Amino acid sequence: MLHFDSDYMEGAHPRILERLCETNLDQNSGYGTDPHTEHAKELIRAHLGNDAADIHFLVGGTQTNATVIGAVLHGADAVLAADTGHINVHEAGAIEATGHKVITLPGKDGKLAAADLEDYLRAFHGDENWPHMSIPAMVYISFPTEYGTLYSLRELEAISDVCKRYSLKLYMDGARLGYGLVAKGNDVTIRDIARLCDAFYIGGTKVGTLFGEAVVLKNDKLIPHFFSYVKRIGAMLAKGRLLGIQFETMFTDDLYYECGRIGVERAMALRAAFIAKGYKPINDSPTNQQFFELPNEEIDHLLKVATFELWGPRGEKSSVARFVTNWATTGAAVESLAAVL
Amino acid sequence: MLHFDSDYMEGAHPRILERLCETNLDQNSGYGTDPHTEHAKELIRAHLGNDAADIHFLVGGTQTNATVIGAVLHGADAVLAADTGHINVHEAGAIEATGHKVITLPGKDGKLAAADLEDYLRAFHGDENWPHMSIPAMVYISFPTEYGTLYSLRELEAISDVCKRYSLKLYMDGARLGYGLVAKGNDVTIRDIARLCDAFYIGGTKVGTLFGEAVVLKNDKLIPHFFSYVKRIGAMLAKGRLLGIQFETMFTDDLYYECGRIGVERAMALRAAFIAKGYKPINDSPTNQQFFELPNEEIDHLLKVATFELWGPRGEKSSVARFVTNWATTGAAVESLAAVL
Amino acid sequence: MLHFDSDYMEGAHPRILERLCETNLDQNSGYGTDPHTEHAKELIRAHLGNDAADIHFLVGGTQTNATVIGAVLHGADAVLAADTGHINVHEAGAIEATGHKVITLPGKDGKLAAADLEDYLRAFHGDENWPHMSIPAMVYISFPTEYGTLYSLRELEAISDVCKRYSLKLYMDGARLGYGLVAKGNDVTIRDIARLCDAFYIGGTKVGTLFGEAVVLKNDKLIPHFFSYVKRIGAMLAKGRLLGIQFETMFTDDLYYECGRIGVERAMALRAAFIAKGYKPINDSPTNQQFFELPNEEIDHLLKVATFELWGPRGEKSSVARFVTNWATTGAAVESLAAVL
Amino acid sequence: MLHFDSDYMEGAHPRILERLCETNLDQNSGYGTDPHTEHAKELIRAHLGNDAADIHFLVGGTQTNATVIGAVLHGADAVLAADTGHINVHEAGAIEATGHKVITLPGKDGKLAAADLEDYLRAFHGDENWPHMSIPAMVYISFPTEYGTLYSLRELEAISDVCKRYSLKLYMDGARLGYGLVAKGNDVTIRDIARLCDAFYIGGTKVGTLFGEAVVLKNDKLIPHFFSYVKRIGAMLAKGRLLGIQFETMFTDDLYYECGRIGVERAMALRAAFIAKGYKPINDSPTNQQFFELPNEEIDHLLKVATFELWGPRGEKSSVARFVTNWATTGAAVESLAAVL
Repeated sequence: MLHFDSDYMEGAHPRILERLCETNLDQNSGYGTDPHTEHAKELIRAHLGNDAADIHFLVGGTQTNATVIGAVLHGADAVLAADTGHINVHEAGAIEATGHKVITLPGKDGKLAAADLEDYLRAFHGDENWPHMSIPAMVYISFPTEYGTLYSLRELEAISDVCKRYSLKLYMDGARLGYGLVAKGNDVTIRDIARLCDAFYIGGTKVGTLFGEAVVLKNDKLIPHFFSYVKRIGAMLAKGRLLGIQFETMFTDDLYYECGRIGVERAMALRAAFIAKGYKPINDSPTNQQFFELPNEEIDHLLKVATFELWGPRGEKSSVARFVTNWATTGAAVESLAAVL
Repeated sequence: MLHFDSDYMEGAHPRILERLCETNLDQNSGYGTDPHTEHAKELIRAHLGNDAADIHFLVGGTQTNATVIGAVLHGADAVLAADTGHINVHEAGAIEATGHKVITLPGKDGKLAAADLEDYLRAFHGDENWPHMSIPAMVYISFPTEYGTLYSLRELEAISDVCKRYSLKLYMDGARLGYGLVAKGNDVTIRDIARLCDAFYIGGTKVGTLFGEAVVLKNDKLIPHFFSYVKRIGAMLAKGRLLGIQFETMFTDDLYYECGRIGVERAMALRAAFIAKGYKPINDSPTNQQFFELPNEEIDHLLKVATFELWGPRGEKSSVARFVTNWATTGAAVESLAAVL
Repeated sequence: MLHFDSDYMEGAHPRILERLCETNLDQNSGYGTDPHTEHAKELIRAHLGNDAADIHFLVGGTQTNATVIGAVLHGADAVLAADTGHINVHEAGAIEATGHKVITLPGKDGKLAAADLEDYLRAFHGDENWPHMSIPAMVYISFPTEYGTLYSLRELEAISDVCKRYSLKLYMDGARLGYGLVAKGNDVTIRDIARLCDAFYIGGTKVGTLFGEAVVLKNDKLIPHFFSYVKRIGAMLAKGRLLGIQFETMFTDDLYYECGRIGVERAMALRAAFIAKGYKPINDSPTNQQFFELPNEEIDHLLKVATFELWGPRGEKSSVARFVTNWATTGAAVESLAAVL
Repeated sequence: MLHFDSDYMEGAHPRILERLCETNLDQNSGYGTDPHTEHAKELIRAHLGNDAADIHFLVGGTQTNATVIGAVLHGADAVLAADTGHINVHEAGAIEATGHKVITLPGKDGKLAAADLEDYLRAFHGDENWPHMSIPAMVYISFPTEYGTLYSLRELEAISDVCKRYSLKLYMDGARLGYGLVAKGNDVTIRDIARLCDAFYIGGTKVGTLFGEAVVLKNDKLIPHFFSYVKRIGAMLAKGRLLGIQFETMFTDDLYYECGRIGVERAMALRAAFIAKGYKPINDSPTNQQFFELPNEEIDHLLKVATFELWGPRGEKSSVARFVTNWATTGAAVESLAAVL
């Protein structure tokens, strides 16, 4: 059986496991106060070229979103997101569980447009009844988006610019960041992201670690007492070293980018195979998620040899299927799938 | 100056104040354990023809929505509402503050369509990823809606039917219930509502009381320990008698309906006046809220003699203005407005 | 039957009702944007001698505590209170419902000692594990306390001093403030309170209004967007004028103090009557709540002619009973009770 | 340097890492839907002799407490715990963040007494004001406690009995369960626990896994939609297999108990060494945590060769120090410490 269900069908890049084995019986203090964690932070700060960046490691993506967004928002504050945003659709209400509304704007291919954002904010501030409404205080975007697409640098700058003018914080969900940064046509660097966003995270779980996300805050004033927020939401990993060691490894010899490159390469091969068979992708995703509208018969046929997800409910005649590759996907797997299309 | 800003420009129907004065120095126990409150509950139960109805009195509408919805939902449960629903737009995130998502469906004239509701629920249950999503557990509708419109009995039955088939609770926001029940063309009775909804409230604040909403739960199993929910959200009125006396008065000699009738009568006169001047209402509201798209010059002209709200932000050339009447609006006030149109 | 159950057996001081009747059909804008509310704020600011005081009117006490405390605290912040504090005992977890812990210290006669507070804070800051603990960020005290007792100016200054040194906000629950300010032996003025506390409220519900509490914040920087917090917790009164008119009346001709004086006078008479019969009060409360440990037979005897509350569960032989007077208690009522002791 | 700071100075038992390496590139579906997770559940169910047990794997202890307690409680419900309980002291308010109060009772050596529990519940139900109070709905105990002590079977049965009579759920925090089950003098088996508690967890993080706790619910009716609660609090581990594999390994060949035994053996050796030098333990903990009141000079002396925690703030002359051993502590380490006492 072939597997294209999700980004996490395997464990971790072998180098990660190697380092966990090598260090296993070393003794380290808990909760991220160990030297590996400190070292990983230094490596990331250097990579970002920002000595002031405030870095924290968490276990998973929804957890990271809920912790960061919940910590930045107060009272009636709300976060704005594309209607397809992960926080709006696939987090079982984790943001609302922190007491805050997710206000949605119609997205296109998973992306929020700066102009739509500005229209919303202008309308809000022009509305006599605004004191009765949730206060837009943060913008959530994902890069790549849930549909595999990317913001151009220009688009990202435009969003950042609107946020600054209306005093909103900009937060980027980088669950699949590695696959975006190396994608063909991408013109956004991680330093651009660090410059334009108030907070973002470098996704590990989907890009080669066993688990783990590196939160990057512009500086340590954005969320004072971050440790306490993490503890209070139950997200504090006792053996914090596990996160430190993994990110230390990821940011040594560019392993993070290497993982990204393999995933994207496989995705491009898979995409080409579908196109060659006459199936149209639903968008121009250059990253590790590929979506195709397929006749239900083709879907049933493929399900005999491969696992993958339907994106949304099954349609009457055709449905949208999602195929995901990652750092561990083999060329052979893609070829096998192509062979049965 | 004329005032059409909202339903609560005045205090209360004089008979309410009279009763408050008469009983003022009587001694009653607190928190709704007094005989007036008991009597008011009996009057309402009799009016609904449901001896099992579990009735509670709260102070305001947003408070009532947050208390009831927050008490019915657990964990990842969410409430479904039209995008224009009061809980989604004008409650500053009060539902989300209880930890639950408001899932929105596109409404039409403020109304949710049973078919759209069913489509959403069918898609949800057909989605492989549903365990990662907020669970639709309740439907919120308002009657009249935020746009003054009404559900027909047939529409209401259709929504109730979908709720039953998918095991969702149906909740109706009756902030302006009195104006809906007496509206021309309305074919829904309060007994229909009590039969079709799991919970609803009979709005007092906008229909003649100083404040107060009467929550009606189908039976006392829907929300065990309701008292504690009320206390915990800070909604418990110490002198509960104030609510009891007001609803006792409202449900004596049909005062509630009398108040509704005056508000609607004035609204119809106002509507006719605008139409006579060539201004088109934005919908066919038969209740106490009337919306017109007016040229900005006309708006500026009217603002010299009357107060009213723009509905949404001011447009470039024209804007939507809302005019609200109530139980205290005089015929003279409507005529004065008509005279300057 | 005589009634000493609580502070709110009656409606409001007649002058309040008079004013509500006189203004009933005046038209005012909602949500506290009316001239009565503005005037009431001015009267209170003048009374406090603080032009910068940020004043808001809410409906009830638990609501006020939850709104103010919930707005000031963030993340892992907690509020410190005496174990007998109202927020810890009789608010059904309203503070916790906002996501924050109430940390309790042993009180004496309902009062928190500055030394105990400092001990706790010193220990907290000396504890290596403090990042895993709730962060003490606010102190809650009540004046009078739940046991009718009062802080001396010296005690209050000591608490304020500890708060300042450890950067905690000081909040006072003034549900019965009027009875405290006029009590014999009290050396604390409302201006002292306004000087020493970051936030407090002037209780109306128990001291002569139908309902209503006046929140006083040191300045408008303590809780930006206070309106939104109020709306979001469901505490916004649509007809805000009702609060404005009541506090306008209370702070005209010192009616607030007049109400306080009557309640205290009756309580002192009641206290003297019990003492004359040989019953010992459990403390030296100089305010409108009096507590006596009484043999259960005496309690059963009194319950035939009067209503009052047991304070805590019934004991085997004797129990603590609470007798409450207020602005409406008549001298005759106290005499009747005294006659049957 | 020697390390006795906490239970998690090392990674995982080598057999765990071995299995993670062996299975690393296997492909498994996410979120705990993989065969390892299924197998681990079967092993645990068989071990407990309860086919109906509903088992879930989470990452950490505070997370588990917040998820389970938050899911069981509704509205004004509260959880009762000893004042020293982990949820009350060292979880930064994680329970309160779910909206619920932790009501504390004085513990003795970390233990709650059934009699104290019953006294509280009897008083609660005898208090006229109970509707204004948080409703005790669950009891939290830890085994071993935060002070290393254990409940006897008789004590546990007594607590369970009180819970049943007053309709409270009983929940046990088993973060260090492995060290308790094998302790000398312990007469409680894991099957007793499964029989007496409605919910408990088998702690992995402190007893040999990299991370992970196995939640055991009496049956799947206790928390319907458990998956959604986990997702919503951000606790869902994407690569759920990591938890499955670890617990599969732990419950194969009794590795869990083996880990427990080593930790306890080392603790007993350490305890004997302190006693031999004349230092008195503060209690009779038979598990992997040992507490001694030591002169500050002795503490400073030891800190030159070993790391360990002060328990609470440093005293003036002496302080309580905690020494923790675990499955990885070597006999040599204990001997080295003993040598410098």
